[in-house]
Amino acid sequence: MTDTWLRSLKHIFKLDPNKPITADQIALLANSGTDAIMVGGTLDITYEDTQELLRMLRKYSIRIIQEISNLQAIVPGFDYYFVPLVLNAQNPSWLLNAHHQALKKYGDLINWQQVCVEGYVILNRDSAVAKLTASNSELLLEDLLAYARMNDQMLKLPILYLEYSGKYGQVAWLKEVRAIVLHSQIFYGGGIKSREMAVEMAEYADTIIVGNLIYEDFNQALTTVLNRQ
Amino acid sequence: MTDTWLRSLKHIFKLDPNKPITADQIALLANSGTDAIMVGGTLDITYEDTQELLRMLRKYSIRIIQEISNLQAIVPGFDYYFVPLVLNAQNPSWLLNAHHQALKKYGDLINWQQVCVEGYVILNRDSAVAKLTASNSELLLEDLLAYARMNDQMLKLPILYLEYSGKYGQVAWLKEVRAIVLHSQIFYGGGIKSREMAVEMAEYADTIIVGNLIYEDFNQALTTVLNRQ
Repeated sequence: MTDTWLRSLKHIFKLDPNKPITADQIALLANSGTDAIMVGGTLDITYEDTQELLRMLRKYSIRIIQEISNLQAIVPGFDYYFVPLVLNAQNPSWLLNAHHQALKKYGDLINWQQVCVEGYVILNRDSAVAKLTASNSELLLEDLLAYARMNDQMLKLPILYLEYSGKYGQVAWLKEVRAIVLHSQIFYGGGIKSREMAVEMAEYADTIIVGNLIYEDFNQALTTVLNRQ
Repeated sequence: MTDTWLRSLKHIFKLDPNKPITADQIALLANSGTDAIMVGGTLDITYEDTQELLRMLRKYSIRIIQEISNLQAIVPGFDYYFVPLVLNAQNPSWLLNAHHQALKKYGDLINWQQVCVEGYVILNRDSAVAKLTASNSELLLEDLLAYARMNDQMLKLPILYLEYSGKYGQVAWLKEVRAIVLHSQIFYGGGIKSREMAVEMAEYADTIIVGNLIYEDFNQALTTVLNRQ
């Protein structure tokens, strides 16, 4: 993946293979002006559901990314694969064990040009993903800034993903993270329910991710694309 | 740190601040032709012992590195700081929790030009470090290769450190790792007791580390420097 392409991502729609969506809705998302569509979710992600969504998306020229959450559901044919590394996970499986299993199984088949590691910080302690990964999500601002530095300076991961998972985050915290991050692309996801919220978070995040709203209020979701065509 | 400098490291002496060494021995090590001296250890590393060793080493022009194993023993004044990330640790503290604590405390003071992350694979299950980190050290070759790919391709860490800790490793495994690693500098440490062993491991590792032998047979340790002056 080119660094330039990553930098160009201002808005991403995130689709959950476990949730229903129509072909017409896929067409509207693909032609919305968003920069990419990411496929991924936390619970009950299967190979078959992911493959079906890929098939529907492949009719359009939009870039499609699989965000890998389940070793059994890695589907060939996406443009890019984003691999989450949950920096505040306390369950070693969500740190590096799952990655090790994947590399053991597929290591010699992977095209690393298509792969990008996302350093996740899970910020909503009540979310399914926080429970799944046993994340230490009771964070102070100084904890978040330490994770941001870990991602940006120590590990030098290309993406820092601030995941509020269903809850709208603290804009003031995003501003503090923005001030210290030098290299990583800052992804923000969680609770964006309107264009105003999208604009607000896009001031400090490089990339905003809109997921749940697609399933809750589809037309509202379309309004979050900042450079609508 | 420059990538060129890292690439230039063929041989490193590793000193344990918790073990006795004389000023004459320090002089011999510093003038041996080794490329750097690293200060670090697993057990009972204190600030005072580390500082004392730094003071003794500072009389010479040799580059000195602190390998950080204890948050309370980080001593200012080294040329470089190597930060271990134990890829096969099962204790989250040795994955990223300790790093998070360090970044929370010192994050805004760190000169990142001096810092380099080492992806460790602990290969001797009977070692103190394997026990301390609760490492999954019962590895097959395919497990080791998956960790090597994780370090080299997925995390893109500058150093892959194969740590046999006191035990001489399998040369055939080093050869397999060498064949798949594209970017990371391969460090090998463990059980080097002679110049022959040093030469053998240096065929596949970029950098060999000699530690215990300094304390067991000092003159033998000096013979492991491949480009002796």
